[in-house]
Amino acid sequence: MERIESTKNPRIKQLMELQQKSSARRRTGLFVVEGRRELDHCLQAGYQADTLFVCPQLYGDGPLPQAAHTLELSPQLYERVAYRGTTEGVIAQVRSRSLRLADIAPAATGRAPLFVVLEGVEKPGNLGAVLRSADAAGVDAVVVCDPLTDLYNPNLIRSSLGAIFTVPTVACPSEECIAFLQAHGVQILTAQLQDSLPYYDTPMLQATAIVMGTESTGLSPQWRQAADRHIRIPMLGRLDSLNVSVSAAILMFEAVRQRQSQG
Amino acid sequence: MERIESTKNPRIKQLMELQQKSSARRRTGLFVVEGRRELDHCLQAGYQADTLFVCPQLYGDGPLPQAAHTLELSPQLYERVAYRGTTEGVIAQVRSRSLRLADIAPAATGRAPLFVVLEGVEKPGNLGAVLRSADAAGVDAVVVCDPLTDLYNPNLIRSSLGAIFTVPTVACPSEECIAFLQAHGVQILTAQLQDSLPYYDTPMLQATAIVMGTESTGLSPQWRQAADRHIRIPMLGRLDSLNVSVSAAILMFEAVRQRQSQG
Repeated sequence: MERIESTKNPRIKQLMELQQKSSARRRTGLFVVEGRRELDHCLQAGYQADTLFVCPQLYGDGPLPQAAHTLELSPQLYERVAYRGTTEGVIAQVRSRSLRLADIAPAATGRAPLFVVLEGVEKPGNLGAVLRSADAAGVDAVVVCDPLTDLYNPNLIRSSLGAIFTVPTVACPSEECIAFLQAHGVQILTAQLQDSLPYYDTPMLQATAIVMGTESTGLSPQWRQAADRHIRIPMLGRLDSLNVSVSAAILMFEAVRQRQSQG
Repeated sequence: MERIESTKNPRIKQLMELQQKSSARRRTGLFVVEGRRELDHCLQAGYQADTLFVCPQLYGDGPLPQAAHTLELSPQLYERVAYRGTTEGVIAQVRSRSLRLADIAPAATGRAPLFVVLEGVEKPGNLGAVLRSADAAGVDAVVVCDPLTDLYNPNLIRSSLGAIFTVPTVACPSEECIAFLQAHGVQILTAQLQDSLPYYDTPMLQATAIVMGTESTGLSPQWRQAADRHIRIPMLGRLDSLNVSVSAAILMFEAVRQRQSQG
């Protein structure tokens, strides 16, 4: 295993660039996964590790994942390049892989799918939090209709705790997503305050997409017009605001409740 | 209005100490609220502002809230002491005021109360997020049974968007909270994976307290034993984890659904 001592090493420079710049991730088709647990989820999902950066003192005795290249870092250097301190001893450069809408098309038979669509993403951490809840709710896929979103942003990966790898996630324009949902007979439920019914009075047993805008601007007219139903979370307090990832979780778990409850 | 130019001014030093140190907040009985919106919620809830620090260029023309002292800061100085940039032009030192359990005792008649109890708080921001959802769900009170929690932590106030002022919040030991809930006939629902039923199959129409532990350690035996029912959020994915504020919101809004749904 080649050992690297300096942050001036070109492999370390590239790693840090990939951590910090979405332009570098786009240009190279590589992104960075830090930590054993996230990397396990990533590789189990079929991603290929290009390079592993391992600190043996921190990683311990377990077997290393497969990768084209494996490089050894001292604890001091590892600490400098790791985002999350020195707990796990492994950082990987992984080849990105874009899912398309066709990859998440529901089967003609089988249980009704549940999709979550975010029209805009204000912060990568918010999308990560939505993905974490989507994993827990057994959501079939998350679709992000925001041209600025980089699905391999380190804050997103970290806040998702790896759900970016366990939940199929597609980035595409809103028009394509609307056409896809309509072609597959998926009902479109848009979260909006105007002209809406409480979410818990809305049937979600059939194939369903829950569509949400940003906290600041809400949904665009094209989604409102494409909607089969408009739904809202009643606001019973004085602030009139919920975090978007909290709202998404409440709506996803209503679908879980309707589909699973014995009551 | 007295004008302050320097961070060495003793009033500014005290303000920064109150922002940074819970020991200073405890010693003086003062805490800091930044921003017009949070301060409005705070004063509407009956808190008294001791000192206002105002930057007239940023605050604009509106009337100033009542306070014992009002001091003027230059934009440069305001920017140095404000946590959230220069958007609103007002920071206040406010006198703290502790609610006790007796203050949130449910009325003998009237609608069944809904309480949320957190046995532990890992981060002030998590408690703030729970309070924000509690406001939206119309929760009657939040009880924090964690001796380390400082309800006036700036991160908590900020992440709650002011819900720390709109939702009655009590800090007390677990034993006292259990005795209070039992004395008032409030059913205790503890969120835990073992020996539990899905939350959506659990009736919440009666007076109810939803009790949650931390993400890392869960609930202590005393709460598990005091429980009328154990409830869980089914985990349908691969990560087996939900953010505590997301879990709290799902459970609170199930109570809202049961109490409000036409379905």
